[in-house]
Amino acid sequence: MVIVIQCADKVGLVATIAGLLQGQDLNIVSMREHVDGIQNRFFARVEVSKPVEAHTLEVQLKAVLPPDAQVIVNPNPVKRIVVLATKEYHCLSDILIRNHFNTLGAEVLGVIGNHSTLDDICRRFDMTFDLVSHEGISKEAFEAQLDKIIKKYRVDYIVLAKFVRILSPSFVEKYPLQIINIHHSFLPAFIGANPYKQAYERGVKLIGATAHFVTNQLDEGPIIAQQIISVNHSYNSSDMVKAGKEIETAVLANALQLVFDDKVLVYQNKTVVFD
Amino acid sequence: MVIVIQCADKVGLVATIAGLLQGQDLNIVSMREHVDGIQNRFFARVEVSKPVEAHTLEVQLKAVLPPDAQVIVNPNPVKRIVVLATKEYHCLSDILIRNHFNTLGAEVLGVIGNHSTLDDICRRFDMTFDLVSHEGISKEAFEAQLDKIIKKYRVDYIVLAKFVRILSPSFVEKYPLQIINIHHSFLPAFIGANPYKQAYERGVKLIGATAHFVTNQLDEGPIIAQQIISVNHSYNSSDMVKAGKEIETAVLANALQLVFDDKVLVYQNKTVVFD
Amino acid sequence: MVIVIQCADKVGLVATIAGLLQGQDLNIVSMREHVDGIQNRFFARVEVSKPVEAHTLEVQLKAVLPPDAQVIVNPNPVKRIVVLATKEYHCLSDILIRNHFNTLGAEVLGVIGNHSTLDDICRRFDMTFDLVSHEGISKEAFEAQLDKIIKKYRVDYIVLAKFVRILSPSFVEKYPLQIINIHHSFLPAFIGANPYKQAYERGVKLIGATAHFVTNQLDEGPIIAQQIISVNHSYNSSDMVKAGKEIETAVLANALQLVFDDKVLVYQNKTVVFD
Amino acid sequence: MVIVIQCADKVGLVATIAGLLQGQDLNIVSMREHVDGIQNRFFARVEVSKPVEAHTLEVQLKAVLPPDAQVIVNPNPVKRIVVLATKEYHCLSDILIRNHFNTLGAEVLGVIGNHSTLDDICRRFDMTFDLVSHEGISKEAFEAQLDKIIKKYRVDYIVLAKFVRILSPSFVEKYPLQIINIHHSFLPAFIGANPYKQAYERGVKLIGATAHFVTNQLDEGPIIAQQIISVNHSYNSSDMVKAGKEIETAVLANALQLVFDDKVLVYQNKTVVFD
Repeated sequence: MVIVIQCADKVGLVATIAGLLQGQDLNIVSMREHVDGIQNRFFARVEVSKPVEAHTLEVQLKAVLPPDAQVIVNPNPVKRIVVLATKEYHCLSDILIRNHFNTLGAEVLGVIGNHSTLDDICRRFDMTFDLVSHEGISKEAFEAQLDKIIKKYRVDYIVLAKFVRILSPSFVEKYPLQIINIHHSFLPAFIGANPYKQAYERGVKLIGATAHFVTNQLDEGPIIAQQIISVNHSYNSSDMVKAGKEIETAVLANALQLVFDDKVLVYQNKTVVFD
Repeated sequence: MVIVIQCADKVGLVATIAGLLQGQDLNIVSMREHVDGIQNRFFARVEVSKPVEAHTLEVQLKAVLPPDAQVIVNPNPVKRIVVLATKEYHCLSDILIRNHFNTLGAEVLGVIGNHSTLDDICRRFDMTFDLVSHEGISKEAFEAQLDKIIKKYRVDYIVLAKFVRILSPSFVEKYPLQIINIHHSFLPAFIGANPYKQAYERGVKLIGATAHFVTNQLDEGPIIAQQIISVNHSYNSSDMVKAGKEIETAVLANALQLVFDDKVLVYQNKTVVFD
Repeated sequence: MVIVIQCADKVGLVATIAGLLQGQDLNIVSMREHVDGIQNRFFARVEVSKPVEAHTLEVQLKAVLPPDAQVIVNPNPVKRIVVLATKEYHCLSDILIRNHFNTLGAEVLGVIGNHSTLDDICRRFDMTFDLVSHEGISKEAFEAQLDKIIKKYRVDYIVLAKFVRILSPSFVEKYPLQIINIHHSFLPAFIGANPYKQAYERGVKLIGATAHFVTNQLDEGPIIAQQIISVNHSYNSSDMVKAGKEIETAVLANALQLVFDDKVLVYQNKTVVFD
Repeated sequence: MVIVIQCADKVGLVATIAGLLQGQDLNIVSMREHVDGIQNRFFARVEVSKPVEAHTLEVQLKAVLPPDAQVIVNPNPVKRIVVLATKEYHCLSDILIRNHFNTLGAEVLGVIGNHSTLDDICRRFDMTFDLVSHEGISKEAFEAQLDKIIKKYRVDYIVLAKFVRILSPSFVEKYPLQIINIHHSFLPAFIGANPYKQAYERGVKLIGATAHFVTNQLDEGPIIAQQIISVNHSYNSSDMVKAGKEIETAVLANALQLVFDDKVLVYQNKTVVFD
């Protein structure tokens, strides 16, 4: 049973929380707390030994915490997600495999593609695939179709598994901190078209990937996880693309596990990851 | 200000601790807690915002915690250490550099060598070097000489920086969880003489190193940190030794920083590392 | 077009090889050569710019090289493999996905399981799955059944993707350096039943995995690749198993890519990996 | 004995080189060759078993290779270097230690600082330290003083060990591919003042460092080596600086070893690293 809390910091918050839990005979088996001294923000993740009625405990905790407190008592034993993808199979396939064998920590309700390429792999896992083409229609109309399907699933998170359409601010605002993206960010990051070609021409020795929440604040939202993979002079541009796919798959899997385990807290444009 | 606690687990320990700190108007800026459910053991590390009188707080905490509680209120802003070495320079030099520039997180009171090889590098840093040769005397007499010097320094920790003499159980018992060693452990570990030659002959692709506390319980005591470095077919046995030294230096530096920051708690033969 | 050569070393081998290639107007776009001075063994991997008739070039090279020379001129543009598995899905699924999307560098002809567990995932990829139960029959009879199926496929390699039966020396001898296994080797390696429990009890900070060829010479054959993953005190025994699976999948995928690209040469119990 | 060659590519270069070496009864114990197909450029590094007269072999090789061929026959068994630094001790100290114990693969002839801070650590190693202040004089005059000292040492390489003055194009042109710098490059790279503060505010999970040759072509010259280190939400800006120093020290040491072993070839703005 996991409890995640963030609020404005003040003296005595841990005592308040721990006291309330003790009063219900709940043993704290693992606790991590962090105060961002610059933002004056309190973050905590608590694992307790016994299951409790989630909503009741949330109400009780909010009653004793600062008014801005966000309290989540393990709302979904298994998170509900939808995956958006385009043509590349690597991230989606990894998610489908884990979902199929019940090791994802979430349930994939459906997959939406803006191309039909990945219909087949979904079908093989008896996974609903909805084709929503962006061609010939406005972004507004495209996103309205996406939204209609997503709403139907009542999801906790939307995972962009190499979905290459840029989502509009109005769409993103509907799902605050619920959209997770995997970005092929190089080191250093190359902006613009064909980043792998630029990386090749620059002769980098590492390439990386970043999993992050999608927001409208910055070019990229709060970073959840980053990893790199070594490359060398023998890698041509397409070898770098291939290496990039390996690391994208690994980083997204890692980030999703952290999020689904309620280990990622977000404030402003940064994450606190209690890994 | 850091507070480190371990004791038998029971419901309400966090509340008890946090309540006591709140009563003294201390804000918890960072807290990590872990319960080992199998050993029924509670571990916590708390950073509070203001300095307090250490001994008083220790007494107050012990008064409200289970009778077996070990409570450390940041006893030494800077830890006092002595380093034991033999002939290899890499770990000792790294420690001397960090000590010299005050970034070690500890103060090196002196170095003891069982060979005179490293006298020179110590002298260059105005560091006391005591030669205690093991030759021609019993282990008992050798260790009595070591102990006499160490006692004089009143140290918190004894760091074995490639010290190749095996310490006797009676010596180790005098410094429980105060002796830190760096071990050239391979993956898989090779037992016996010339482990690098064995690693070479086995054709391993990784070699590693382990920093651990020295105890008499097992062949190796509680592990603090481990790292590896990649090797390949072009490495001969002495190249592996060289790569091993790089990783030994890095792992020991990392382990010492964790220990000096009071981030390592030990119970039975295992560590809890709040890194 | 790849040429792989190993033989006893002597002066002039590179000149001999390069001269012969030049005589056929073949440009060497990449070459790696290594001499094991202790074994007096020459290893080379050469990539040339144009395709040639493989068998003819092999004959020509053997004619000018020492009599013990092993020469392989890229015999199989795509390697043919069979996968043996038991119950665990992680390595097999990763192979099936890559095979399905033609990025494995090999073609999976079929999967053989000694349990029916993985029949379903194979079926989803239209992959032939043969159940060969080991129960109630002798090892000899069991392996005869395996062998009959494998023979039918005329494979280059047999991949043991978490296949838990020990293969007999007589079976292994039929497929010299053709059987690749993934081993959950810890650092240090724990022998015997339940290695993860031992790793947990020892409090290791790293766990690893090793991909290797299966031979009868040693407990493990020539190592192809090894990787590790960090763990900490918060991992219980089953968390370690889970982390182990992630690294097993990654190491096996890496090792297979190296082998299928003809980048792994073996001599005695060691590999030369021209990665 | 190492031979390093680069030139325009054509069929038969390996045969030409190997034939010439065979004619002198030289056995090739290790060879790596790479052709950049896009640049049509040939790179090779050859280790032979016996020492030879370097200049003679260079002349012989150039006589049979394309006219643009660069041939280096291990010109300096031990490279001669000078180190430029400012105030930070970490990279310089690591170099001084390795130099002192003869494991650097190069000889440090002297250290030049634009502040007096690092005079003391040099003195402790009996290392010449020249203070060349940039204050109150033009960049031209400052660099003229640097150059006068460097010329005196007749160095192979100039290592910028956290030297914070930007060198002018005219200075850099005098030492083509002889100046090696360590750069605190983040992932993604942050431009401008106080990159660590930006990295902190962006909430990155990795920070990195890049060792590269200094050229006037781009903001950074050819990359030799890059590494990263993990950070998390508990790192404030100065913790990131500290972690950055660890990785800067490691990357620079690694890059220097590669360069001093003649394993790094440069063409245009990229390196070929035969590691």
